Formats: sequence, C-alpha cells, structure tokens
Amino acid sequence: MANIGNAIPEKTIERLSEYRRTLLSCHKQGITHIFSHVLAGIHGITAVQVRRDLMLIGFSSDTKKGYDVKVLIDFISNILDSPQPMNVAVLGMGHLGQAITKYFNGKGLKLRITAAFDVDPAKVGQTIDGIPCYHMDRFEEIAEDLDISLVIVSSPTKVAPSLVLPIINAGIRGVLNFTSTPLNFPQGIVVENYDITTLLEKVAYFVKESEENERGSE
Amino acid sequence: MANIGNAIPEKTIERLSEYRRTLLSCHKQGITHIFSHVLAGIHGITAVQVRRDLMLIGFSSDTKKGYDVKVLIDFISNILDSPQPMNVAVLGMGHLGQAITKYFNGKGLKLRITAAFDVDPAKVGQTIDGIPCYHMDRFEEIAEDLDISLVIVSSPTKVAPSLVLPIINAGIRGVLNFTSTPLNFPQGIVVENYDITTLLEKVAYFVKESEENERGSE
Repeated sequence: MANIGNAIPEKTIERLSEYRRTLLSCHKQGITHIFSHVLAGIHGITAVQVRRDLMLIGFSSDTKKGYDVKVLIDFISNILDSPQPMNVAVLGMGHLGQAITKYFNGKGLKLRITAAFDVDPAKVGQTIDGIPCYHMDRFEEIAEDLDISLVIVSSPTKVAPSLVLPIINAGIRGVLNFTSTPLNFPQGIVVENYDITTLLEKVAYFVKESEENERGSE
Repeated sequence: MANIGNAIPEKTIERLSEYRRTLLSCHKQGITHIFSHVLAGIHGITAVQVRRDLMLIGFSSDTKKGYDVKVLIDFISNILDSPQPMNVAVLGMGHLGQAITKYFNGKGLKLRITAAFDVDPAKVGQTIDGIPCYHMDRFEEIAEDLDISLVIVSSPTKVAPSLVLPIINAGIRGVLNFTSTPLNFPQGIVVENYDITTLLEKVAYFVKESEENERGSE
C-alpha cells in the first residue's frame, strides 16, 4: 500500500493496533501502568521498537511507573480511529466470512460489521451471528443505506473479480481482500490483499532460511 | 519477523509468492511469456518494483517477449520452497480452520495440510475436507509421526497460549497465528502473528488518512 503524505509506516500502524489490543486487555484486568519492555515482551519485539513507535506518534509520557495504560489507549485510538465508527460489510459468508464475523462480534471496536452479503439462498435473508445477510445483487443499495465504508472480501476466489465493480459503484473506501486473486481499484480506494497462502509460504521460507543458516554454521 | 542472514526482505518474499501464483495461473492458461508491466498491473504495483524484486533474487532473463513464465516459476520456487514438501497442521477446526483447510486442498502446493487438531468430540476422529482431525492431546505424538513442521493456529483466542508448549515440544519450526493473542516462541521457531483486526484497522487508518489528505487539498 502506498504511504500517503506524512503517514506513519504501515508496520508501525500494525503494531499500534496490536499494542492497543494488549493495552485494552490490561485495562480490563485493572492494570493501570505498563513498562515498554513488558509491552515489548508480550509482542516478541524489543523495548526500543516500542519506544520508537510511540515516539513516531508523538507519545512520550513515560513515567517511573511506565506508560499510563488508559492515556496510551486514548492516544493510539486518536491516531488509528476515525471520529465516527466505520461500518464494514463482509462479502461472502462461507467459513471464512463467518469466522471473521464471529470474531468481530461484540468486540466494541470502532469498526462494526453491519452487513453480510452472499448469493446462497440458504444464507440470504438470514441473520448469521447477529449480522443480516443480503443478496449480493443488492450490495450497492444496502451499502448506501447502511453507510458502509469498508468491505472484507471472503468470497470464493473465482467470484472476487466480479465484486470490484459493485465495490467501486457503492463508494467503498477500503477493501481487505482474503481471496487468492489480487484486486485492483482506482486511486482513492485503499486495498490490502492478504492471501493465506502467501502468509504460510513466507513462514515456510524463513524456516528454510533458518535451517540453512544453522547447517551453514555447524 | 527478524531478517536472518542475507535473507530477502519480507515484503519481497510476499510478492514472490504472489507472482508465482499469478504465473502458475498464466501457465495453466497456456501463456508462455509475460512482461514485467503486465505482471505489475495484475498486482497493482509498478514494473520497476517487479524488476527490482526479480533482480534481488538474481533473475534477469528478460527477453523481448517478456519473462518466460515456466522458467520464472521454477526460479521463484527454487527460492521459496524447501527441497522436500513441508507438512502443515491446523490447530482449531472452527470456521477459520475449515476455511483454511478447504482453501489449501488440492492446490498442489509444496506445503501440505496433513492433519487437523481440535478438542470438540464432534470433530475429533472425523475427516474434514479430506484432512483427519485428531484430539489436541495427541498433538506431539501425531506431529512426530506425520513429520509436521508448520502449524496454523486458528483456535479460539483464549486457547492459543496453551498451545505454545505443545508446539515447542513437538519440534515445530514455523507458526502462523491468526488469533488475537500474540504468541512468543524461543529463537529458532519462526512466528507470524496475523490478527484480522489489525489488518482491518490498518485499512481503516489509511482510509482515514486519505480522506484527511483530500480535505486538506480542497
């Protein structure tokens, strides 16, 4: 994804999202302060990395007790979240779509899955995990009615290309695509393609590399 | 993930995996040559990026007809794949686990899902999408028998931390974790944590940024 303007690096954005999830869980447990090295340990990275990320977003209120959990949550939220919650639609309610929906349900995030779409008569018209499922033919109309701004594409791969035009027409601003087909959109629509094969092949590559290095150093 | 030795950057590895998938699909359709700008267009990136990635792995046999599809597939495979296929186990056969299994089935990859694990009596002992499902209690034993080297963690988030020790004990070398809990492993085990919330929050952030930039330039 292209970096826009003076935007924060992608990897930092990912980590901020992860830190926040950990901080929210700390907050829930009544933990009020956390040291950078503790936060780092949970995420398997160095304290230097955590401090660098927080410096990048202008957060520096480190105290002797560590970071104030609540203050840091609000600070990160201010960076990541839009003032208004964003509505999300899931396109494709097979196993993956249902896993995602279940996962997000009741998490109280600023991102809310408010609609699902499919073409399967057994799913259309049903409420699945609390989310109404509509026919894909009605996507543009419903997306406008429900003010959907993001979509998750979890359809079968071969269907994915046919979703590009409806997504553009509905004025969607961001797409998270889990199918094996990379989807291209005009400028102004943010897209992240996350093929699960790619992720697994990446892990496998680094395993292979580390094994070769081990053999090399024997 | 740390870069190991003179390893190729993570993002290049991801793209190589994506290029290969596109090339395999071209090959299947009888396409013998492809230009860098065509490959780039499919992936929504620049031809310069494609050429830079291929240069990084030492591939430079660009001809007037473009890259030889078959030669490039073999070249990338030589970089990405281990000489032997790697066996993969899926830990957690809920919606996400089943989506992943279904997805990989019959793709003829060098990575093969050969076993699934769960604790649900309705799943244990069954064959789901052609993959035998065992009880998680038997993970270490089965992983050794079946020579499993990679695992995909698709269990409920709250279960994930309890899987760390069995994974270490079973001698697993790579972990792809889709739960919301970051998992840490000793050095020598490659781990990628991919929380779906993070991916979606990242898309939402870049949407917000691009909207702010548009407003700023009006």
